Amino acid sequence: MRDFSADARQLSINTVTLRRQGDLVAIIEACARAGIRAIAPWRDQVAAIGLDRAVAAARATGMALSGYCRGGMFPADPARRREVADDNRRAVDEAAALGAPCLVLVAGGLPQFSRPGSAPTRDLGGARAQVEDGVGALLDHAREAGMPLAIEPLHPMYAADRACVNTLRQALDICDQLDPGRTGLLGVALDAYHVWWDPELSGQIARAGRARLLAYHVCDWLVPTTDMLTDRGMMGDGVIDLRGIRAAVEAQGYAGFVEVEIFSEHWWSRPMDEVLATCVSRHRTVV
Amino acid sequence: MRDFSADARQLSINTVTLRRQGDLVAIIEACARAGIRAIAPWRDQVAAIGLDRAVAAARATGMALSGYCRGGMFPADPARRREVADDNRRAVDEAAALGAPCLVLVAGGLPQFSRPGSAPTRDLGGARAQVEDGVGALLDHAREAGMPLAIEPLHPMYAADRACVNTLRQALDICDQLDPGRTGLLGVALDAYHVWWDPELSGQIARAGRARLLAYHVCDWLVPTTDMLTDRGMMGDGVIDLRGIRAAVEAQGYAGFVEVEIFSEHWWSRPMDEVLATCVSRHRTVV
Repeated sequence: MRDFSADARQLSINTVTLRRQGDLVAIIEACARAGIRAIAPWRDQVAAIGLDRAVAAARATGMALSGYCRGGMFPADPARRREVADDNRRAVDEAAALGAPCLVLVAGGLPQFSRPGSAPTRDLGGARAQVEDGVGALLDHAREAGMPLAIEPLHPMYAADRACVNTLRQALDICDQLDPGRTGLLGVALDAYHVWWDPELSGQIARAGRARLLAYHVCDWLVPTTDMLTDRGMMGDGVIDLRGIRAAVEAQGYAGFVEVEIFSEHWWSRPMDEVLATCVSRHRTVV
Repeated sequence: MRDFSADARQLSINTVTLRRQGDLVAIIEACARAGIRAIAPWRDQVAAIGLDRAVAAARATGMALSGYCRGGMFPADPARRREVADDNRRAVDEAAALGAPCLVLVAGGLPQFSRPGSAPTRDLGGARAQVEDGVGALLDHAREAGMPLAIEPLHPMYAADRACVNTLRQALDICDQLDPGRTGLLGVALDAYHVWWDPELSGQIARAGRARLLAYHVCDWLVPTTDMLTDRGMMGDGVIDLRGIRAAVEAQGYAGFVEVEIFSEHWWSRPMDEVLATCVSRHRTVV
């Protein structure tokens, strides 16, 4: 297991963590000031400043990427599937332009939440079938672009409205179905917040192996959690055995960044430099 | 699949659904007025009026039981394990006195939440081992009392603070470990709210079979859900495919009550008779 105690060389900041404090340029500059080497930006933050400026800002600071958030949201009414496919191909192209090592895919939940305006349904199995079809179709474009796709299983509490891929086993089943050769083009983004509860976690991490582990994200689970989306914790403030999960991931040979992604009203209300200093400190002591 | 459209003969009311509107006697009387034949009472509601009065009230109205809530909360500091075991044996005895068909077991989460005052830990695997040990020990007493134990897997969002048994597969693994002969003394209480998201659900229901399916609970998953504990929905108001899950359960031969268990600030604020009339109506139309 890698020793993080001396520095933050393996730390990446998912820019949603600071989405309220400034635009992507301000976030990149703050990360550079804090000695952070990598980020994972979101599409809306890139769009807000323009792709060219985002590429330039990352280059000017030598900022690496640990991923690009996010493609996906596959379930939709049949009439909208071409729109969804086009949207996802653009996400792949943006990720390539930014030099991201992977495009993170959040599957989407039921169609009415995944792509609002779609007809309401309770057919979760149907949504899951659409996800597999959507990833499969996107894989062709990803192959041409040389851009790996990282399916992120989301916590089961998001099954209806955000992602109907809810366990690592399920994500790996999709990977094995669509990419049985383990080409490196399809894998998972493993976020401790979403999977820490899973009794099968260590076995499924071993099943994933290095070839499928494309990204590793951390934050913490607070007790109580007062909001399902915006009350995630800073590493060390909750109950997740972060060291144990990282040990399992690194035992498979994972040697990439550890990405901090925190949706939190509390941390969004703090100054950017304070949040980043805390991320660096916790990265060195509890991650 | 059974036809519920004509009446509410298969409906049971878990009394937590009305816990704010009245005591257990008032709830039993309201259920009788509504033509409901069964309830599943909670220990604290029984304790509040006394076990003898609870037995008498159920008898006076001819009210059957679909279960007794709840034993469990196994993880604790080593010094407190005898206290926990004694507490659970009393729960078995109360269930027997009330004539319940099973004692529902909610596993408990990490020790500091399961039994407050226990030392804080992030060792979820250790908590799970304590649950298995605790159920195993309780099983001897349950056998003597002839009282089946029904492990209830709770939604993964409760893994830290309420139950570290979070999938049907996990609950059935415990059952198979402790009761390989499928004696009928150990099984599961399946609550649609906790398991509806699980991609393995139908396969695990088939694995459970009639011998392990000791209770079936319903409510609904609201989008958005504004509170993790107290914003569960009335059947039909959310996204769960209740008919699909009941069909899978009944395909295994389950012929027992369908128990409505709703933790909801909204429904706790409504008159008892209105809540029960709504439960009856939804039971007949959407469950």
